[in-house]
Amino acid sequence: MIATPPNSFKTTLRVTWADTDAAQVVHFSRFFVYFERAEEEFYRSLNFSFADLRSRGFWLPRVEALCQYRKPATFDDLLEIEVTVEELREKSVKLGFNVAKKETAELLATGHLVIVTADRNSKKAVQIPKEMIDKLRPFSKHIL
Amino acid sequence: MIATPPNSFKTTLRVTWADTDAAQVVHFSRFFVYFERAEEEFYRSLNFSFADLRSRGFWLPRVEALCQYRKPATFDDLLEIEVTVEELREKSVKLGFNVAKKETAELLATGHLVIVTADRNSKKAVQIPKEMIDKLRPFSKHIL
Amino acid sequence: MIATPPNSFKTTLRVTWADTDAAQVVHFSRFFVYFERAEEEFYRSLNFSFADLRSRGFWLPRVEALCQYRKPATFDDLLEIEVTVEELREKSVKLGFNVAKKETAELLATGHLVIVTADRNSKKAVQIPKEMIDKLRPFSKHIL
Amino acid sequence: MIATPPNSFKTTLRVTWADTDAAQVVHFSRFFVYFERAEEEFYRSLNFSFADLRSRGFWLPRVEALCQYRKPATFDDLLEIEVTVEELREKSVKLGFNVAKKETAELLATGHLVIVTADRNSKKAVQIPKEMIDKLRPFSKHIL
Repeated sequence: MIATPPNSFKTTLRVTWADTDAAQVVHFSRFFVYFERAEEEFYRSLNFSFADLRSRGFWLPRVEALCQYRKPATFDDLLEIEVTVEELREKSVKLGFNVAKKETAELLATGHLVIVTADRNSKKAVQIPKEMIDKLRPFSKHIL
Repeated sequence: MIATPPNSFKTTLRVTWADTDAAQVVHFSRFFVYFERAEEEFYRSLNFSFADLRSRGFWLPRVEALCQYRKPATFDDLLEIEVTVEELREKSVKLGFNVAKKETAELLATGHLVIVTADRNSKKAVQIPKEMIDKLRPFSKHIL
Repeated sequence: MIATPPNSFKTTLRVTWADTDAAQVVHFSRFFVYFERAEEEFYRSLNFSFADLRSRGFWLPRVEALCQYRKPATFDDLLEIEVTVEELREKSVKLGFNVAKKETAELLATGHLVIVTADRNSKKAVQIPKEMIDKLRPFSKHIL
Repeated sequence: MIATPPNSFKTTLRVTWADTDAAQVVHFSRFFVYFERAEEEFYRSLNFSFADLRSRGFWLPRVEALCQYRKPATFDDLLEIEVTVEELREKSVKLGFNVAKKETAELLATGHLVIVTADRNSKKAVQIPKEMIDKLRPFSKHIL
């Protein structure tokens, strides 16, 4: 049986001046904001309402964030960010990110976010809601 | 009768790399964060608990923000920020800010924030709590 | 003779989570980054190369930034930003901005940036390059 | 022979309102800016001039950034950040960071930055200047 490659989601964003630093490249911390913007667009593409989730008392804190930088991004670059579901666990999801320069397809950075589903009041991790699981499963490399 | 000059409050902060942009100066939007950091230290100096105010249902939205830039700030500059109370009204306060380079006393930027006291639930402007008025009055140029 | 209204430019952007603050609205300083993103898209729409301008030794420092806030923007809002040329002077341009919630057309904030054309080395204001003038003129309310 | 624990450097910083997000905690991306602010203070404590390094043509790009989050930081928290030198290599240094709440000594987050010494023009990694090595060595757990 041949595994089919998992689905991935892609979105683009433009580097704005405020994201650059005095080395005339995008500040390394801004890639994490880019990851999160791609995550938000990914959820939107799934018709997955983050706002609705929040109104039901869930919260999505990040427990780990990693980025490895290969080449700098610069002002006005159009970036393409690919999102994959690296791991889907009972109470957490690990999203993988690849940031490329759209025009040349050069890979600039890779990384991940580990996100926990938590109860807003107790602050404890809780099971990922079933409808979120159902939407993320087709994108998942590992379901644990 | 000679008016005595109003009190002012001064605090310092250091320009971090993330605040710079590709022109190798502090991004203009960061001065507003500097204003707010100075505002927070000003309140702290008055033993004025912003957290307490919030827990009692108040909120301090900004209705106007202005900055005029004279000279750029650069990485690693130690800045001195002076806070004055430009106007103290029934439901709002206008704080004035002067940002200087500490070492040379050069004035880099001036500006103001107009801040309203609002009820968190109704989102309506409400009277500034009396203890806040009492603490701000000694710093006020105009009480309206 | 009836004055025709000046042209304006409109662009949209989505509020990301990192732009919000603990009052669960967009932090006031982020509107200035939104202004600048709209400015960048405005230039792009004019085929006006900011990168080219920079390579020729020009720099576009801001000398004044103002924002007046009417209603808060919140996470996931799609914002429409309108850019107008308020004043076109020999060495500076004043861009006006209106930020509205796209879905409801509610006006959330208005403001402006005063931008100077400067020489990167001397840091002195210089005349706005003719091709930039030519592109901005059709959008200008006042040419001074 | 008993290894003596390596030296570490500690600095404090205050959480400002702009660092918080709509979950009423510090946005996860801001911890990377906190790491960098601590790195800058660490260099300052060593009389290590980053500005001088830059003027000699060096650049310090980050090739990896990791943060693991244990507990949220909130508005007005005074944070204590500890910096250690995890690894000192020929052309790179790995700085470790522990972020604690000063008042309670609770550990909120840990992480690291891997920083390369590069030539500004060629963008190639170069050997860490000897005076930087000499200053970092007393803090280093592993010299490779």
